[in-house]
Amino acid sequence: MSAALRDMLETFANQFPQRDYTIEIVCPEFTSVCPKTGQPDFGKLTITYVPDQRCVELKSLKLYLQQYRNEGIFYEHVTNRILDDLAAVLQPRQLRLAAAFSPRGGITTTVTAQYQRAQ
Amino acid sequence: MSAALRDMLETFANQFPQRDYTIEIVCPEFTSVCPKTGQPDFGKLTITYVPDQRCVELKSLKLYLQQYRNEGIFYEHVTNRILDDLAAVLQPRQLRLAAAFSPRGGITTTVTAQYQRAQ
Amino acid sequence: MSAALRDMLETFANQFPQRDYTIEIVCPEFTSVCPKTGQPDFGKLTITYVPDQRCVELKSLKLYLQQYRNEGIFYEHVTNRILDDLAAVLQPRQLRLAAAFSPRGGITTTVTAQYQRAQ
Amino acid sequence: MSAALRDMLETFANQFPQRDYTIEIVCPEFTSVCPKTGQPDFGKLTITYVPDQRCVELKSLKLYLQQYRNEGIFYEHVTNRILDDLAAVLQPRQLRLAAAFSPRGGITTTVTAQYQRAQ
Amino acid sequence: MSAALRDMLETFANQFPQRDYTIEIVCPEFTSVCPKTGQPDFGKLTITYVPDQRCVELKSLKLYLQQYRNEGIFYEHVTNRILDDLAAVLQPRQLRLAAAFSPRGGITTTVTAQYQRAQ
Amino acid sequence: MSAALRDMLETFANQFPQRDYTIEIVCPEFTSVCPKTGQPDFGKLTITYVPDQRCVELKSLKLYLQQYRNEGIFYEHVTNRILDDLAAVLQPRQLRLAAAFSPRGGITTTVTAQYQRAQ
Amino acid sequence: MSAALRDMLETFANQFPQRDYTIEIVCPEFTSVCPKTGQPDFGKLTITYVPDQRCVELKSLKLYLQQYRNEGIFYEHVTNRILDDLAAVLQPRQLRLAAAFSPRGGITTTVTAQYQRAQ
Amino acid sequence: MSAALRDMLETFANQFPQRDYTIEIVCPEFTSVCPKTGQPDFGKLTITYVPDQRCVELKSLKLYLQQYRNEGIFYEHVTNRILDDLAAVLQPRQLRLAAAFSPRGGITTTVTAQYQRAQ
Amino acid sequence: MSAALRDMLETFANQFPQRDYTIEIVCPEFTSVCPKTGQPDFGKLTITYVPDQRCVELKSLKLYLQQYRNEGIFYEHVTNRILDDLAAVLQPRQLRLAAAFSPRGGITTTVTAQYQRAQ
Amino acid sequence: MSAALRDMLETFANQFPQRDYTIEIVCPEFTSVCPKTGQPDFGKLTITYVPDQRCVELKSLKLYLQQYRNEGIFYEHVTNRILDDLAAVLQPRQLRLAAAFSPRGGITTTVTAQYQRAQ
Repeated sequence: MSAALRDMLETFANQFPQRDYTIEIVCPEFTSVCPKTGQPDFGKLTITYVPDQRCVELKSLKLYLQQYRNEGIFYEHVTNRILDDLAAVLQPRQLRLAAAFSPRGGITTTVTAQYQRAQ
Repeated sequence: MSAALRDMLETFANQFPQRDYTIEIVCPEFTSVCPKTGQPDFGKLTITYVPDQRCVELKSLKLYLQQYRNEGIFYEHVTNRILDDLAAVLQPRQLRLAAAFSPRGGITTTVTAQYQRAQ
Repeated sequence: MSAALRDMLETFANQFPQRDYTIEIVCPEFTSVCPKTGQPDFGKLTITYVPDQRCVELKSLKLYLQQYRNEGIFYEHVTNRILDDLAAVLQPRQLRLAAAFSPRGGITTTVTAQYQRAQ
Repeated sequence: MSAALRDMLETFANQFPQRDYTIEIVCPEFTSVCPKTGQPDFGKLTITYVPDQRCVELKSLKLYLQQYRNEGIFYEHVTNRILDDLAAVLQPRQLRLAAAFSPRGGITTTVTAQYQRAQ
Repeated sequence: MSAALRDMLETFANQFPQRDYTIEIVCPEFTSVCPKTGQPDFGKLTITYVPDQRCVELKSLKLYLQQYRNEGIFYEHVTNRILDDLAAVLQPRQLRLAAAFSPRGGITTTVTAQYQRAQ
Repeated sequence: MSAALRDMLETFANQFPQRDYTIEIVCPEFTSVCPKTGQPDFGKLTITYVPDQRCVELKSLKLYLQQYRNEGIFYEHVTNRILDDLAAVLQPRQLRLAAAFSPRGGITTTVTAQYQRAQ
Repeated sequence: MSAALRDMLETFANQFPQRDYTIEIVCPEFTSVCPKTGQPDFGKLTITYVPDQRCVELKSLKLYLQQYRNEGIFYEHVTNRILDDLAAVLQPRQLRLAAAFSPRGGITTTVTAQYQRAQ
Repeated sequence: MSAALRDMLETFANQFPQRDYTIEIVCPEFTSVCPKTGQPDFGKLTITYVPDQRCVELKSLKLYLQQYRNEGIFYEHVTNRILDDLAAVLQPRQLRLAAAFSPRGGITTTVTAQYQRAQ
Repeated sequence: MSAALRDMLETFANQFPQRDYTIEIVCPEFTSVCPKTGQPDFGKLTITYVPDQRCVELKSLKLYLQQYRNEGIFYEHVTNRILDDLAAVLQPRQLRLAAAFSPRGGITTTVTAQYQRAQ
Repeated sequence: MSAALRDMLETFANQFPQRDYTIEIVCPEFTSVCPKTGQPDFGKLTITYVPDQRCVELKSLKLYLQQYRNEGIFYEHVTNRILDDLAAVLQPRQLRLAAAFSPRGGITTTVTAQYQRAQ
């Protein structure tokens, strides 16, 4: 499903490419499904990036994230996959994704990954 | 409209130019209009700068920011434009603007930009 | 769908029916779908009841609430329907449901309903 | 302007009129203009009501409140006027409006008014 | 000094006298002087009243409170005196004043007084 | 096991029986075992009572509560059983126990029971 | 020691005896010694009273409370004894003392007592 | 007991070994027993690691940590032993464990240890 | 007035000059007067310094700061002037002053200055 | 008194000397006496150290700190003296002590000192 999913992310031209600046986007309403138990997972995503030529359009990001609602996927995978998709469409100067999931069995997990732009 | 707008920002002489010191100004009552939906946006601006020869006069800053009240403008643009206007009138040693906007569609955005003084 | 849904709620015998005591259950991971926009809604349910002969089994309650995940239903309706279902299977001495939904368009809504036992 | 303004408030039928239940709506993004100084005021409105035959539609409420954006009006008046408008279109069993305004001159004001239904 | 002081409090006509409603005014910047030690005291005043025919004008209230800045007066007296002055000019249906003072010698004091309208 | 367990609770004479006063004891380190899954449960107990002739000795209360550490017992039962044991040894004028358990499966439960002294 | 101790509490005349008003005094720096273990105890006292003819002078209250610094005394006793001493010197219309002690062995205790004026 | 204990920790293959990313796991329900007093200790463990080829499976981690429930062990030892066990089964790029224990005798202790991978 | 004012600051000998250590002093009760409007300003000063041969005596600092109570002075000036006075009497190894002022016109300002010791 | 006092601090062998790890100990119940006024001072000590061959035993630390209960000593001195005593008995790799004292005269002081191990 991943190629089609990535295509949902729309971008617009960054009008200040001569300046390094940061955009932080917090999405506290992320939900997917645990592939092992079939139970829903809930998490808060924090996306932080320095745009190059493109910025992500927020409504398309919201619709993109909603596609995980009934998807069975592990914490580590979903974090890295969203990072890959954003990196592919934005080609940003920097990009970081922190995904903080709700407690399960008394244990809380946060996965944080960073995109390393090829120099 | 930008040239006239910038002229609203009044400054006064920094009486301690021999010392690097920091002035942080927090404006939690910023509001503008989304150019796409026509709906009002709300945000909190945090301006942090090291003055050189001039400091910004607070009342003129307040009146300047109120000019965005009925202006249709995107998050990224308004942040960079205010940064540019402040940099132009202050010629500061350092300047940083963080604009944290209220949640829309369950998503919260903060844009942070820094002015790089020509060496 | 409601009859089948209600059947998912399992109960067990209250072993202390001679005493009025209160059970409060907080479910911060409730999600349904807005019937108008098709967008997901998120909410925190707080169920407070005084049991009579039956208590609700928590795992069945969790599975019952998950059935609303892809259901299109308004705030006011979902609150009253869950109240009705719990009242039907528990026949409690008292029952109250508060449903606090995430902000939409800068506006936050909480619906609170109480079951009135026939005397 | 008031009659036209009130007409912006849309309602829908309460499907549970046989039960007294409470709807609380919090609007933290209210803004109007001080009639004396011309400066913008900011406030958080909390509307709490027990519906009778009608509920207020949230999007129309948002658009209604936005009409005050450039209106010059005192704290006490705006609170009582919104209360009157909501009471007129909802004819609720109970209705209460608390309007908490941002500090001005180091002083913070909250106005709270309640609608008394004729018995 | 009290008569002249009271005259500083300006009022305006309550436009909604047919309705009982509440106005709460919080003044976190109150300061006076301890008559015993000559040291400044700091406090937060919370005024809550139900207006009858008059409301207090906020700017005049601010100027009135500033008159205590260099006045030597005890906690209990200042609280009761401000209550008396407000009661005299407002003739309110209800009036309550809570004055919470900063810690002195590891001890924090709050004085709360209520005006009882003659029936 | 209950009789022996109750005997662990030591008491001492209330020296102020002529006055009704309240003792609140908060125990945030309660743990027992879920009888269904064998998994440990964690909770915070709040005991509030008005003593008559006896007060509970705190060290014996701590040791008594530790006996539940490896005991398989449901939320509702453990709350009511501790209430019964405390009521039996204290014969208090009033007694209330609130047991707030850690989230399981995204759901948090608090059980609150009150002892009704025979008149 | 109690008679001498009580004599340390100085009072001054209440200048507003015609009005019922409340004085709340918070003392977060109370410390005494556990008579059983010899270990220091720490607590926060909250005294709330409605004065009749006398108010307690704060500095004398501070010195009075410091006398418990090296005194071995139980939670329940110290609370009731301070209440008795304050009642004796103030003869107040109402008086309440809440003493919240620091955790010991993972358990936190608050004792709250109220003075009942003879009618 | 340590060898058998370590075997309880299950791992799964890291699917993104080409990227350095961080997994933080918070376990607020850790409990063991003080070897000196026999009294239970309570703590919150925060595990932060950068995986290499393996990630720890969360349910096995939970069961592993529960084995300390009735084990007599000092704060410093338990922290270092869990660090050693996780390092042995994960061979991570980085690993850090912070163990924050509940107050005892008015004193709170946090032990933080870091695994240094052989270069 | 400044020379006389500076003389109010008393110092005592640092008994540990062989060690670099930090003293942080927080003064939340600073107040001066706006030279433009004549209105009082309120602020919280945080002084952080590494002493060399002298430490500032706290009571003299308090009396020194009270001299600004009726002084008309701008935020930027008062911050730099207090910094200069402290630097002159302490000759510290390091010194930093942060002055956070209360909101005015919805805008909050913090001025932070650092003393650079001549090498 | 200092030599005898230092002898109260007991230590035990660090079982993990091959690893640099941190132990943080928070003591919120420290109290001593002001040598100038004779009034009690209250503070929170935070001790952070990297052990070498010895760790401090917590009960002996508690008893050691209690010896300051009736000792007249200045903030700066007590902080440096406790640091010296801990450094002498632990010979740690790193050691830091932060002592945050309760407000006096509206002013709060924190003293932070670090032990520099001879290389």
